[in-house]
Amino acid sequence: MVKLNEHYQELQQNYLFSEVARRAAAFAAEHPDRDVIRLSIGDVTRPLAPAVVEAMARAAREMGSADTFRGYGPEQGYAFLREAIRDDYAGRGVAVDADEIFVSDGAKSDLGNFTDLFARENTVLIPDPVYPVYVDTNVMDGRNLVYLPGSTENGFLPGPPDFPVDIVYLCSPNNPTGAAYNRAQLQAWVDYANGCGAVLLYDAAYEVFITDPDLPRSIFEIPGARTCAVEFCSFSKTAGFTGTRCGYTVVPRELSRGGQQLHQMWYRRQTTKFNGVSYIVQRGAAAVFTDEARDQVRQAVDYYRENARIIAAGLDALGFQYTGGVNSPYIWLRCPAGMGSWAFFDYLLENAAVVGTPGAGFGPCGEGYFRLTAFGDRARTREAMERIAALFRP
Amino acid sequence: MVKLNEHYQELQQNYLFSEVARRAAAFAAEHPDRDVIRLSIGDVTRPLAPAVVEAMARAAREMGSADTFRGYGPEQGYAFLREAIRDDYAGRGVAVDADEIFVSDGAKSDLGNFTDLFARENTVLIPDPVYPVYVDTNVMDGRNLVYLPGSTENGFLPGPPDFPVDIVYLCSPNNPTGAAYNRAQLQAWVDYANGCGAVLLYDAAYEVFITDPDLPRSIFEIPGARTCAVEFCSFSKTAGFTGTRCGYTVVPRELSRGGQQLHQMWYRRQTTKFNGVSYIVQRGAAAVFTDEARDQVRQAVDYYRENARIIAAGLDALGFQYTGGVNSPYIWLRCPAGMGSWAFFDYLLENAAVVGTPGAGFGPCGEGYFRLTAFGDRARTREAMERIAALFRP
Repeated sequence: MVKLNEHYQELQQNYLFSEVARRAAAFAAEHPDRDVIRLSIGDVTRPLAPAVVEAMARAAREMGSADTFRGYGPEQGYAFLREAIRDDYAGRGVAVDADEIFVSDGAKSDLGNFTDLFARENTVLIPDPVYPVYVDTNVMDGRNLVYLPGSTENGFLPGPPDFPVDIVYLCSPNNPTGAAYNRAQLQAWVDYANGCGAVLLYDAAYEVFITDPDLPRSIFEIPGARTCAVEFCSFSKTAGFTGTRCGYTVVPRELSRGGQQLHQMWYRRQTTKFNGVSYIVQRGAAAVFTDEARDQVRQAVDYYRENARIIAAGLDALGFQYTGGVNSPYIWLRCPAGMGSWAFFDYLLENAAVVGTPGAGFGPCGEGYFRLTAFGDRARTREAMERIAALFRP
Repeated sequence: MVKLNEHYQELQQNYLFSEVARRAAAFAAEHPDRDVIRLSIGDVTRPLAPAVVEAMARAAREMGSADTFRGYGPEQGYAFLREAIRDDYAGRGVAVDADEIFVSDGAKSDLGNFTDLFARENTVLIPDPVYPVYVDTNVMDGRNLVYLPGSTENGFLPGPPDFPVDIVYLCSPNNPTGAAYNRAQLQAWVDYANGCGAVLLYDAAYEVFITDPDLPRSIFEIPGARTCAVEFCSFSKTAGFTGTRCGYTVVPRELSRGGQQLHQMWYRRQTTKFNGVSYIVQRGAAAVFTDEARDQVRQAVDYYRENARIIAAGLDALGFQYTGGVNSPYIWLRCPAGMGSWAFFDYLLENAAVVGTPGAGFGPCGEGYFRLTAFGDRARTREAMERIAALFRP
């Protein structure tokens, strides 16, 4: 009889977002007169740039004509898109080859699938609090997990530990804390990984929100990263592609361990278990880098940045402690008056009809914290902060 | 130091299609006057149906407007598409629930990723010759492989062995042999799997080519399949989606082993390591099932079927042995005069300037066989068969 992967039974059910939705819905049902505002979602709300829409509609029409129809494309993505991504990196002073870029249907898929390349017998260092996918995908494979505690003391930007590990996840700007590593901090991580032979899995999904020129947007801005790091990127937050689905992963050729080159392994993995991203979507993604779309895309990002600024300014006025709000779409606040994450959730829902996300859902170190997001509507965001101010104004 | 997955070093480089392309290109360079016809590709060539194109262009425009913009969708696919697929099954007399259907970016991804659900310690039964992905994805995980020999004697439709295994791959209509199992043969497989607790991974990517009403198009037409089988389907060959990317996998709720339900495990796998298919592509896939598109899609399939008939008729006239040609876009012929696969490849290329695929590339049992495909242009297919006839006419 077939033996199933027993590690699936070790997975914890993550009830975070369903529990948030359940409590918010119950509140709305009990209080039909109250106007509930949700600052809990990690999903974008602004429409795609017109130039991106037009590129996809054009590509769809190409598929309808025998002369311009496209069948199977390269598993790692069309050259037109990989070269556009390479040029975008070059414009930020980062040199990567087009064939080091692997286009995919999103960073979540790549982060999960990349664990295929590693043996079971590895110790994985995972920040806490964190995006739950890093934990779950490694539990599924039965790897040993070690948590790296984030706290107000280290600004939720923990440095390397004083013991060796094999695999390290970093997310900067971080989901959920909004904190972003600076150059010196990332250099310490790169030196650590090169020192002990670890691989850094660097999640840069939120890099577009960085405005401070002293904060790196790519791990490959750091000397030495090409021998230890893989970078996961996404069009989801950069260009509103959460429902359109496109991302890319950069695997430098210099990255090898024990004589095996990770670039070659990932190429083999993707050509065997993946068949490339829709031509139509790749045309849309490539259009993001055109001059016309760049301005349109920047407007959406600026919209979210202004929401983040409004939330941060509101918390500043109340004397709340938080990370993020700049260089990030997330604001990670310390719950006032020593409240726990879920207690604050309920308090805010009942007294201000504002929904956020309890930090405890992102890991034990998230207890006592709370996440607000800048991805909502402008007027609603203002209104939510006015309600919070009315509730907590001294 | 990180330990990489050592099984990747056990993978054989599959040079089949690159070697075919290399030899064909070398021939064309040496003989610029010769007109080379390729009947080697497994990729479609007819454009998408106008109704599908229009649905995708409309969906792209929806994404460009704040009112109709879509962010993250359900990982397992939108209800509108899962329900359309369910209704299509129902129209063929097969009852599956919409929530047993998982929409993905293609059958290749699902076939590869589904192995995540199995422990390493399983014996996998794989037909020979076969689509190389079944072998490679299990080598990557270090599973024990047992091959099931196909031959002229069993019509390349081998039945269950007289020993138990844990996982069985079946592909019907088969790639590369074009052979399709009948009801009694599939019933024997279902009874075998239920008897020994094996899971049947049933690749139905070519089901649309079945015209014989006595041949099942779904494993779920067979009593008992819901407790042992998973079915992998694709819009690639059904509706020309090789470059558009959409497929689906049906995991029945009754399928569990050792107390674990595979439906629940696949749901957890996909919600953790996947974020759904592009909304635009899902709208295109759903349009395939509209009355307008059905006729348009059928025209393309009929076009390939007629190509297959032309190839088969040509081989009949020459007295060649083959499988496929009906109920399949593939024609799998025995090389004449005892030639080996690659010897016949070279002979056909040099003497008729026709490119096919050597059977030996699909496994040891493919030696001495050769694959032609019906996915090419009509006039070119006719021309190729005239050249083959001129070469082999007695």
